[in-house]
This record gives sequence, C-alpha cells and structure tokens, in this order.
Amino acid sequence: MQIQPQKNEYAIGIIDSGVGGLTVAKEVMRQLPLETIYYFGDSLRCPYGPRSETEVFQFTKELVAFLMQFPLKALLIACNTATAVSLVYLKKKLSIPVLGVIDPGARAAIKASKNKKIGVIGTVGTIKSGAYEKSLKRIQPTMEVHSLACPNLVPLVESGNWNGVDSYDVVAESLAPLPKEEMDTLILGCTHYPLLTQPITQVMGENIAVISSAEETASELSTILYHQNLLAQKQTNQHRFFTTGSSDNFARIASDWLGKSVYAESVSLSTMKDCLA
Amino acid sequence: MQIQPQKNEYAIGIIDSGVGGLTVAKEVMRQLPLETIYYFGDSLRCPYGPRSETEVFQFTKELVAFLMQFPLKALLIACNTATAVSLVYLKKKLSIPVLGVIDPGARAAIKASKNKKIGVIGTVGTIKSGAYEKSLKRIQPTMEVHSLACPNLVPLVESGNWNGVDSYDVVAESLAPLPKEEMDTLILGCTHYPLLTQPITQVMGENIAVISSAEETASELSTILYHQNLLAQKQTNQHRFFTTGSSDNFARIASDWLGKSVYAESVSLSTMKDCLA
Repeated sequence: MQIQPQKNEYAIGIIDSGVGGLTVAKEVMRQLPLETIYYFGDSLRCPYGPRSETEVFQFTKELVAFLMQFPLKALLIACNTATAVSLVYLKKKLSIPVLGVIDPGARAAIKASKNKKIGVIGTVGTIKSGAYEKSLKRIQPTMEVHSLACPNLVPLVESGNWNGVDSYDVVAESLAPLPKEEMDTLILGCTHYPLLTQPITQVMGENIAVISSAEETASELSTILYHQNLLAQKQTNQHRFFTTGSSDNFARIASDWLGKSVYAESVSLSTMKDCLA
Repeated sequence: MQIQPQKNEYAIGIIDSGVGGLTVAKEVMRQLPLETIYYFGDSLRCPYGPRSETEVFQFTKELVAFLMQFPLKALLIACNTATAVSLVYLKKKLSIPVLGVIDPGARAAIKASKNKKIGVIGTVGTIKSGAYEKSLKRIQPTMEVHSLACPNLVPLVESGNWNGVDSYDVVAESLAPLPKEEMDTLILGCTHYPLLTQPITQVMGENIAVISSAEETASELSTILYHQNLLAQKQTNQHRFFTTGSSDNFARIASDWLGKSVYAESVSLSTMKDCLA
C-alpha cells in the first residue's frame, strides 16, 4: 500500500508520429494540470499515414519501449494511424491503462449526434483502416458513417500556415465531398486537425458538432485515472519532450503550440532499438 | 474464460430517489443501445434532498442491496444527493464499477470551461455537501466555483409542468443570483434539471455551456465498460423498472419521459430490507 502514493505521481506517456499529438498533450495539461507528461514524437520518420501497417506497428513498439524505461502510470497513443494498428496489442502487452485517440472520439460523437449520422475525416491510412466506423458501429450498429480521407490537411498544418489566408480554401476543397446536409456531427480523426477547427467549423456550418479527439482523449484519460485511483495529488509536473528529429525544430513548434517555453531532448533510433526486449 | 461473454450481457443497475434518474437511463439507452438496464426508484421516500446524510446513506444501501440480487456488471447512482453520501463507500464495497453523477459532470465542465469559472446548481443537500466543488478542485485547484441551491426546480419538474409557460419565470428567478458574466460553464447538478435545459439555456445565454450530468454519466459508463471489456455484444436488452411507490404512476411518467411504453414493478420496503446482509 506504500507504492500507491508514489504511483499517482508517475508520468503519463504520450507517443506520436511527430508534433500532431501535442494537441492531445495540450488538452491533458489543460484538463489535468497536476499531471506530468513524457511526450515522444517520431518526427524523423513522420508522417505515418502513408506507411504500411507492419512499419507503423514496428515504429510504435519502438516508441513505447523507449518511454517504458521511465515509470509511467498510463500511455496515450496520440496518433490515429498508430492507434488503428497497435492499440489492441499494447492494451494486452502493458500492465498500465493504454488509450488511443479513436474510441474517445467515437464515443463523444455518439453522445453528440442526435440523428445518428456522423462524418469522419482523417489521413488515408486511418480512413482505410475503417477504425472509426468499427468503433462507432460496435456501440451503435445502426450508425450511418461518412468517412473521408483529407490528405492535404496534415501538410497544411505541418507547413505552419494553418491559420493563414489560404487555409479556408484548402479545408473547403477537402471537405467538399461530405454530405453536410445529412449529418449532424463530424469527427476530426487526426490529431493535427484541431489546429484547423476554425476553418472546419466555418465550412461545415454551425449545425454540425465538431468533435476533437484530442479534447475527448484527455477527458477519457481523466476518467480512467480517477476510476483507477491514479490522479496526481500534487503539482510536481516536470514535463519532458523527446523527439527522433531535430530537438530545436521540435522545441520551436512545441513552444508555439503549447504557448510556453519547451525544452526538447533528441533520441537516436539506435537508442530506441536498444530498449526493445 | 467462459464467464466473460455472459458477463457482458449482465444488466446495468441504476438507482435514484425517484424518477429523476430516468434522464440518466434515457441517455444510457441512447448512447449504449445494446445495454440492458435495471432501474430502481425510491419514489415512496422521494425527495432525498432535504433528508439527513444518515438517512440517505441507509436508503441508498437498501436500493443497492435489492438490485444486487440480480447479476449486474455496473452500478450507476443516478441521484446527486445519494452520490455525495454513498459513492466512496459503494466503490469500496462492490466488486463491479460504480459511477456517480457528480464526477462525470465535473470532468465535463473542466473540459468545457475556458476561463476556469464554473457555476453549479443543485438541491440544497447537494450544494451543502460541496461535492461538486471538491470534485472540480481535486483536478483543477485554481477553479472558481459558484454554487447555488435551487429548491424550486425539482418541484417544477415533478409537477409535470417543466415545459409549461411559467417554467421560464421560475428558472429565471432561481438562477438570478448567479454571476453570469463571470462564468462560461454551468453544471446541472441534479438529474431532474435536464428536463429544464431549454429555459435554463435561455436564461443563461448562448455563451455559457450547459453541462448535463445525465449525458456525461452515460458517456463515462461507455468509457468504463469499454476499458473493462464489458460492453454488451448483442441486443438482448429487456429493461426492468422497479419502484417503491405506485407502479402505475412510475410507469406513466417513465413512458412519457422515455418516449416508449414502460412496465414498472412495485417493490415493498420490507422486501428491500430482507436483501440487506
């Protein structure tokens, strides 16, 4: 019983293909301000979207093995592509709670939708996996789901121009195939997309609820930590940010997105591989 | 491993002081349409709001003991007053997940609020317990909470005139003491209040997010069932409704609120007491 208080102060591990998962990290900081985050972004091998399942699965295992060196109390897979490929495996493999970004978004959409007609946008990989559709229909078999891959949105965010003058046009063109009049809820099925919430909301109109998986995943983490008596009791957070890419680049983007100064640590791929059992 | 598939089809127990918790039951039916509900309302001894803690605690234990005769996979305490008094005890005592209505509402409010200033309305008992304030501040110690007891709202709902012409005036008068300009989120801290969402939203204005604990509790139940591999796999639901009061009255109100024909079973207090260990 003496381990319990210590364990509450363990960090929450967050992995992502790069910087996109910072939208989830930011929401965790906002909704759970006492918690400590260890974030690991695989910027060197980003994006995961167009890669094979085998490759994404292998990369994800490497990220997890590295973070699991530290005492963690929960793990968030803050990348839709990695969630689709590895969530079931990691939930079985690890003894701590593991959360992906797909199910929280699906559950929130079910809560929001009155007419049971939901749209999902994501990367080619996520949409092809059908993961959102499966998650939605497992709970509500009669749900009507309109899925759309939007390959131009991640590059728009990564370019740093997500609030530029062109972003509305790119978003409008990407979302054009969605049957807006038939659905009342849209899931942002990619952790990059919350940065485009404004143009997306503008394009979709005010009658369509826009669900950010970042916000919902943080909320679900809060629920899980509470029910497992794992909420941090005191503010001892000392977040750490690791990247396989340039630590300077990562720190610059993270500081910008999180609105506070971030120091990032560079991790080499060989170090990561050494961590694998 | 053969018990698992059976357990997924067990019912979800819901207890309440009377009919108020039907707002939670309705949300569970909407968000988790495959699940079976066993609902028990203590209409004979309703309301719980003005009763002593000891009495509410005793009554709640009796309701739980009766429902636990059936194979349940989770228990919802769909009454704020009962949650404030018995959640900690029941979580320790029972081996199934136990959810109250206070923490889900608090977590949803934390997610919704941008300025960290939140209002809470509830019965005298709930507000006096300070349960929402504790729940909010455990996660966000800097949260500013404005609590207000609204003793006139439950009678308004129970009278059946919740969508009558006078309801706006009663709501406006009840909410008048809230500093609306200083908060961006309002928690409906009583399971009766979702029936007054329309006049409450009208009075509060469109800039204040109104959080229904009914909706959030159902969503949290969905999360917990998923993470414990307890989601129902097939539609075998055969809901049952028990009441300590008149089964005809209960059935009439429940049919009206749930929008479908409901058959209610009457339970005598002596039967309940026999169930206590």
